[in-house]
Amino acid sequence: MPHITLPDEFPGIRSLFMYSPATSEPMNQLANVLLYDPEYSTLTPGERELIATYVSTLNECKYCATTHGSIARFQLGDEPELVRQVQQDPEHAPISDKLKALLKIAAKVRQDGKKVSSADIDFAKEKGASEKEIHDTVLIAAAFSMFNRYVDGLATIAPEDPWLYEKIGRQRASEGYLTPPVPLDEESATH
Amino acid sequence: MPHITLPDEFPGIRSLFMYSPATSEPMNQLANVLLYDPEYSTLTPGERELIATYVSTLNECKYCATTHGSIARFQLGDEPELVRQVQQDPEHAPISDKLKALLKIAAKVRQDGKKVSSADIDFAKEKGASEKEIHDTVLIAAAFSMFNRYVDGLATIAPEDPWLYEKIGRQRASEGYLTPPVPLDEESATH
Repeated sequence: MPHITLPDEFPGIRSLFMYSPATSEPMNQLANVLLYDPEYSTLTPGERELIATYVSTLNECKYCATTHGSIARFQLGDEPELVRQVQQDPEHAPISDKLKALLKIAAKVRQDGKKVSSADIDFAKEKGASEKEIHDTVLIAAAFSMFNRYVDGLATIAPEDPWLYEKIGRQRASEGYLTPPVPLDEESATH
Repeated sequence: MPHITLPDEFPGIRSLFMYSPATSEPMNQLANVLLYDPEYSTLTPGERELIATYVSTLNECKYCATTHGSIARFQLGDEPELVRQVQQDPEHAPISDKLKALLKIAAKVRQDGKKVSSADIDFAKEKGASEKEIHDTVLIAAAFSMFNRYVDGLATIAPEDPWLYEKIGRQRASEGYLTPPVPLDEESATH
């Protein structure tokens, strides 16, 4: 049960966005630029969602890890197995060495920004990462340090139904983060 | 030295905002609503800045802790000693029991949102906190889990000069977060 009274027709961060529209607007704008906008980064939206998913998985934020895992799946062209591999063992997942190096930086930022060393940065550059891609990785990891804590710090609901996450994944992968969420009831009613 | 090439006329998060304007806009909008907008919260801007300062202090983010400590100081009517007491030992600082209870929640969110218990929430309510104030506290602590990691994950510069932080503190306490920063040189040139 959430720690505060939230609209029960929305799960996870969506219930918080309904509760506090004034903060939801910049938070969704940040997510949209950082994860979805193709102009913003030379990392693909699929790569950016994998970084968000990996950080949320390490933070054990069920709602965020499942939601962004689903968005990553559809951004990458329906690749649920690849997403699972990145969540469990990125070092052995079939992704680029550049992305592996960036995920290592993301994992350190998740713990504490000060853990990122010059050696981590040099290694990522050696594997082909640009400074802007390193910046974007750090900011994605930092932003999910916020989103995960917001979702879990107020004990929001993470539904079990895999269909719901699939639906959210398809929606956000195709629309980005600026369109309104469909209420839980309507989503459930469609399957 | 920062991990990436940043404009050296700006310190801390300001250098990142110049580097990435597209993400700086929603991040500043979030800070402005959450910390400064008097309509948004029944917590005063001074109380909100104390929460931000406390989280940044626990995260050992020098730039954020010093900057928001300075903003808190001026929001509270030039109270540098009170800010220092909250940073070092909030339990014995001359602040309300409600704010003490909220700072305990913020400290848990900083570590992991899942650490916040129903007992923590009940205790804060007993001390007079509303659900909205609990929400705002959790979101401030979550947001500074992001800002601190962004600033430290890219090893931005935290200047030593106390005058600089005093100037930023006065500016943000009176203008909020939507006005452009003054470059470091100009700020230094004025004293």
